[in-house]
Formats: sequence, structure tokens, C-alpha cells
Amino acid sequence: MTSTTTRERLLGSARTLFQRQGFAATGIKQILEVSDAASASLYHFYPGGKHDLAADAIRTSGAEYQALVESVLDSAPDPCAGVRACFDGAASTVEASGYQDACPIATVASEIANTDDELRQACADVFDSWIDAAAKRFRAAGVKPAAARELAVTFIMLLEGGFLMARVRRDAAPLRRAGRTMEALVRASLDS
Amino acid sequence: MTSTTTRERLLGSARTLFQRQGFAATGIKQILEVSDAASASLYHFYPGGKHDLAADAIRTSGAEYQALVESVLDSAPDPCAGVRACFDGAASTVEASGYQDACPIATVASEIANTDDELRQACADVFDSWIDAAAKRFRAAGVKPAAARELAVTFIMLLEGGFLMARVRRDAAPLRRAGRTMEALVRASLDS
Repeated sequence: MTSTTTRERLLGSARTLFQRQGFAATGIKQILEVSDAASASLYHFYPGGKHDLAADAIRTSGAEYQALVESVLDSAPDPCAGVRACFDGAASTVEASGYQDACPIATVASEIANTDDELRQACADVFDSWIDAAAKRFRAAGVKPAAARELAVTFIMLLEGGFLMARVRRDAAPLRRAGRTMEALVRASLDS
Repeated sequence: MTSTTTRERLLGSARTLFQRQGFAATGIKQILEVSDAASASLYHFYPGGKHDLAADAIRTSGAEYQALVESVLDSAPDPCAGVRACFDGAASTVEASGYQDACPIATVASEIANTDDELRQACADVFDSWIDAAAKRFRAAGVKPAAARELAVTFIMLLEGGFLMARVRRDAAPLRRAGRTMEALVRASLDS
């Protein structure tokens, strides 16, 4: 029998709430209710309260999402199929969750980019790490370093723009088409 | 001498605050302070309070931004130069504003996509209208209808993803590069 710790429940609830409704709309009270945790526990694990919890949510969900994307890219026969599979998988997840589960950090990132430099930096670190991970794989497939980095940035831009379109317009088809666009861009870089 | 009306001041302040810090973080009190308006005025013009104000902010800022993008596209010699100019202009605006002024509706859109269906629909209407406006111009330049629509969706996805990256990573260069990518995609559609 497995059991989650109070800290795991707090972090898991906070991650879901921040992802779906943002930082400001998520109150301590709601986090405690969803986690079935006491206020004292939250401040024991996160002395800075909601802000510390958000920083941990950004870091850990960013790292988990990166591991997921890396495993999709690494299990594909080539980077063209890999990027396509990433977008197809993202589209399916968004649809299956009723347009709720998209980027784990984008909602908070967009909200705090101009108002909280510590959380902004945590989000920037996550995006940088995603870009590095993708660029490394494009380089390994034979794309020149500068082009590999540009492709990786384009990959994340299309994914983020696609997630926003999908959630707001209740349609994941553009995410799938973005995967085809990204596939063509990777192929062109490999051919050049 | 020109003077702004109370309603204009309320809407203008709300638009800026919603754009930069989101819906939940923006309180009625702050809107009234920045607008130098009384609470009674706000409820006179917007009986539904902050929610009505947000719906009006989304509609009006979405329409204004569309008019700006249309004027950039329409004053360019061709759609390739047009999309490049849109991204270059967006990057310059983001930089000049200290990474504050990006998409007028994305912060609120991301925040409320799963929690407020009325505001979500207002944001979806704005995105649909932007897509229609861009697709119309790509068609006029000779791109086939289905491809024109896909290009238009890609245009908005890259712009939104680029805005998020720029604000969070304090770097507008990816927005400019996205303009080059978009230009190449438009050119390929014209050639095919």
C-alpha cells in the first residue's frame, strides 16, 4: 500500500490549481482543502507560504514535463517523428482533460511575468531547460548548433501558443497541425 | 483640450492592469485608484463590476490590436514582409515597455480558460477574429483557402508563444526569429 505524504499532497494540489486557474485565483484555503492538510503543515514545508509553494510547483512540474517530452523525443525513430509525437500527445492530453491540462507553468508564468521576479525567474529557468533539452537532441540528429537552438525555441513557442489556442478555443486541432509544421522545420534543418 | 471620460479611464486602466497582472490579481480598488473613479461610476457603466469590465476590455483591446496588425499587414509590399513586420513591431513594443506590453488578452485568457466560460468565449471570439483577418490577407495574396487558414493559426500561435517567451525570459529575439520563420512559411505557401 502506498500513501502520499502531506507535502506531496500539498504540492500536487497546488500544481493542479495553479495550472488550471493561476496564482492569484488560488487561495491558501483552497489548497489546504484540496490537499486535506492543515495550515501548520503548509508553513512547515513552505515557510514562505503560497509563494514558496508556487516556486516549488514551477520547478518540479517543469522538470517532470521536460522528462515526459524527452522520453517522447527519445523513443521516436528520428527527431521529425519525435516533434510530431510531442504535439500529438499534447493535443490528446488537452482533449482528454476537457481542455484543462496543457502547459504546467504557462498560466502562472503569464500572470507573474511582470509582477514577481522570483517566480518569473523560476519560469524562465524551466523554459531555458526545455530549450536546452530539445536543442541537444536536434544537434545529436545532425542540425548545426545555432539552428538547433532556434528550432528548439520555435518548438516551445509553437507548443505554448498551441496550448493557449486549444484551451481558449476548445479545439486541439491547431496543436496537431503545429506538430506537422514543426516536423517540416526540423526536416528542412536536417536537409540543409 | 481633450479630456477622457470616466468610462474611458476605467476601461483603459482595467485593460492595462489585466494585461500586465491578470484578472484575479487586479482588484476593483486598484482599478478605481488608477482610474481616479468612484465605485458608483464603475457599477453605473459596468453593472456586473469587474467581470463586465473584463469582458469589455477583452473585446475592445482585441479589436484594437487586430486593427494594428491589419494596418501593418496592409502597408507591407507583400504578406511575407507583412508578417515579418508584425513580429518585428511586436518585439520592439515588448522591449520598449520593459517586457510588459505583449498580447492584450493572453494573460486573462490563460487564467480564465477553465474557470469562466463567458470570458473564455470573449477571448475565443477575439482569436477567431484575428485568425479570420490574417487568413483573408493570405488568401488575397494567392494562398489557397485551407492553407491560408492554417497559416493564420500558425501566425497567432507563434505570436502568442513568442510573447510568453519574451516576457518570461526578458528577451524579444525569439519573437523576431519567429517572424523569419513565419515569413518562410508564407513564402512556401505562395510558391506551392
